[in-house]
Amino acid sequence: MPADFLPSRADAPRTLWRGASLATMAPGKPWGWIEDGALLTEGARIAWVGAATELPARLRADDEIELPGGVLTPGLIDAHTHLVYGGHRAREFELRLQGATYEEISRAGGGIRSTVAATRAATDEELLRSALKRAQALMSEGVTTLEIKSGYGLSEHHEARCLRVARRVGERLPLTVRTSALAAHALPPEFEGRPDAYIAAILDWLPRWHAEGLVDAVDGFCENIAFSASQMQRVFDAARALGLPVKLHAEQLSDCGGSEMAAQYRALSCDHLEYLSPAGVQALAASGTVAMLLPGAFYFLREKQLPPVGALREAGVPMAIATDHNPGSSPTLSPLLMLNMACTLFRMTPEEALAGMTRHAAQALGLGHSHGQLSTGRQADFVHWAVDHPNELAYQFGHKPCQLRVHAGVPDAADLARIAPAPEF
Amino acid sequence: MPADFLPSRADAPRTLWRGASLATMAPGKPWGWIEDGALLTEGARIAWVGAATELPARLRADDEIELPGGVLTPGLIDAHTHLVYGGHRAREFELRLQGATYEEISRAGGGIRSTVAATRAATDEELLRSALKRAQALMSEGVTTLEIKSGYGLSEHHEARCLRVARRVGERLPLTVRTSALAAHALPPEFEGRPDAYIAAILDWLPRWHAEGLVDAVDGFCENIAFSASQMQRVFDAARALGLPVKLHAEQLSDCGGSEMAAQYRALSCDHLEYLSPAGVQALAASGTVAMLLPGAFYFLREKQLPPVGALREAGVPMAIATDHNPGSSPTLSPLLMLNMACTLFRMTPEEALAGMTRHAAQALGLGHSHGQLSTGRQADFVHWAVDHPNELAYQFGHKPCQLRVHAGVPDAADLARIAPAPEF
Ligand SMILES: [Zn+2]
Ligand SMILES: [Zn+2]
Repeated sequence: MPADFLPSRADAPRTLWRGASLATMAPGKPWGWIEDGALLTEGARIAWVGAATELPARLRADDEIELPGGVLTPGLIDAHTHLVYGGHRAREFELRLQGATYEEISRAGGGIRSTVAATRAATDEELLRSALKRAQALMSEGVTTLEIKSGYGLSEHHEARCLRVARRVGERLPLTVRTSALAAHALPPEFEGRPDAYIAAILDWLPRWHAEGLVDAVDGFCENIAFSASQMQRVFDAARALGLPVKLHAEQLSDCGGSEMAAQYRALSCDHLEYLSPAGVQALAASGTVAMLLPGAFYFLREKQLPPVGALREAGVPMAIATDHNPGSSPTLSPLLMLNMACTLFRMTPEEALAGMTRHAAQALGLGHSHGQLSTGRQADFVHWAVDHPNELAYQFGHKPCQLRVHAGVPDAADLARIAPAPEF
Repeated sequence: MPADFLPSRADAPRTLWRGASLATMAPGKPWGWIEDGALLTEGARIAWVGAATELPARLRADDEIELPGGVLTPGLIDAHTHLVYGGHRAREFELRLQGATYEEISRAGGGIRSTVAATRAATDEELLRSALKRAQALMSEGVTTLEIKSGYGLSEHHEARCLRVARRVGERLPLTVRTSALAAHALPPEFEGRPDAYIAAILDWLPRWHAEGLVDAVDGFCENIAFSASQMQRVFDAARALGLPVKLHAEQLSDCGGSEMAAQYRALSCDHLEYLSPAGVQALAASGTVAMLLPGAFYFLREKQLPPVGALREAGVPMAIATDHNPGSSPTLSPLLMLNMACTLFRMTPEEALAGMTRHAAQALGLGHSHGQLSTGRQADFVHWAVDHPNELAYQFGHKPCQLRVHAGVPDAADLARIAPAPEF
């Protein structure tokens, strides 16, 4: 049971939320829909949820908040981000569109190595400040749980710095943060031409990061241009020895068999998956691994190969979606836009898209029992949206319907002040 | 000279803005860039703009606002929107993704006819309220000038209602609104099978709408599934007789020759243009017509045919971009996302994209002499962005860097309060 899953306390304050309908995202019926619902929080947990007409008479609440219609959903879970890094790549983006060659961009300091250099050059405070701003942008669209990967430090010292910054984001903001150690993201310049030596170095560093409490999961980038499945296997063996769950960037640009390998380790998720084979689909289904689809990177890289959504659906593999926020291939801070892109680009249904940022995203972080649904006993993370039906969240794009965000039972104060008198034009 | 282009008044209050760099978007050098700039407003106009070091000593200001770094650009101009309508089409979007057939969607009330029915059924107050909310969402991303089309009323009464609502949006909000009469958007049910009779009806209605002051331009949808070039020509003849400028939805799904016809009327803009022919490009270049590209609809409809950006650039045709906000093919309220989509999908450069929402968008509304650039004498519409360089506006997507919006010299009060002390983490 993770530390942020709080047991019920008899003396915890109880707040009753009513006036909205609920998309609980509990399985069983579409959207887990409850028309005109009510939700009771008890401290950080949900103590009761159901139709307002079925509220037990005995229910006592210290506080009652009447919402002006709209819909409550679970808080959004952005379960794949690279939020901590220095610099950005706007100039590289511009150069590419001006027709610069690969060499010209390299000379101008483009590519992942420029982000590694900027990350190493940034102070802890600079990394924290930029990560906090990005996290707040995600929160403004309803994010209550956030995964943050390292992967731009690529040395023992700098990867640890990034993981510490990720932890501090979770301490400084009302947000649940889960970290992933992604040292196996790219080959750092010090190990040019020596990928196996770099893997060996990671095996050396990992136990110390783990001992410091920096690592919730171990991640890697399995691709022709990154690490092979057998190299990742060595990292996963080390993770297993430490009792850490694993996940993998796999099958984004080609089918390298990463997902089948990761499934043998009962990976929490395999991510990207545009080139996932039928055998890979079956492997994920058998291991209970979440398929994490990332439409922002697909869009930004103008990819053409779609992930096998139909086959994943058919096989019953849970599909999650995330922003994949990163400076190179997905510089987005809009989880709602990802809902639309999951539908428009990947042909997921609006309900599948929202499940992909709630129930299935929770599962992808190992929080499937405590987060991602509005149901009794779970953490009281939820969002109030100015919509009549949750399908509107995915239908519009580039909109701002988030009215109120509640994390661990505590509403964002500014949001609450805005909602309370609910003035209209 | 349009009514909103105010002459200088000696007694108008003068405010000096400094502390930011300026992307004036004046032609001549990239971005019209001025590092560490200053801008003096005099009432609703810009009285001086340049480098802070070159501020004339004699300049007197009643007020001085020190911005915390960042970049000022002209206010964004969203020059193609269908902002006034009833209902939405989220359920239709969901049904499509669930695999419903065209017939099933029709039976469930889908398509443009459902929006026409919902618009006709809505009260003026309902139409105004929803349009105001949408306009405010656009303003929150820096829009200071907005074009609004009719086109979901499709009768004399209901088109006029929608145009009146558009005018009221401009009266109720600090925003410059330009209206376009788009009765020739689709065939209303009353004229089923009688398109020429509907065109004749429009010719009858147009002078009365114009006499009421409702029409700034006349628009139409020229396509196999809508109206032919020769039908649109009859509408444009009527517009010319009234002294009204024209524009056209053309070459979106096929090459119908609409652009070449519209160029003969010196159309302000031709819009969409995915199937524009080389002859069409030359016609636009010769007539000084703006090519209005709409990446949101391209994205949402999953189109594959790209507009001929290279040929337009080569021919010197000014390219504008807009949200094309509408419930059927572009339910977006994010002009910044359109900047990114113009680059990512259409391969425009970040500077071309921003010119497309400032200088060229102004030209597309007949406001090229008074709006769309930061230069002396123009309307003081500008935005302060939390970025170091304007290329960041197009590079990120789904972000919220708008710090302060100023329309006709007047800053949005809430924005100004937020900026003044400029607290940091
Ligand atoms: Zn990633
Ligand atoms: Zn349009």
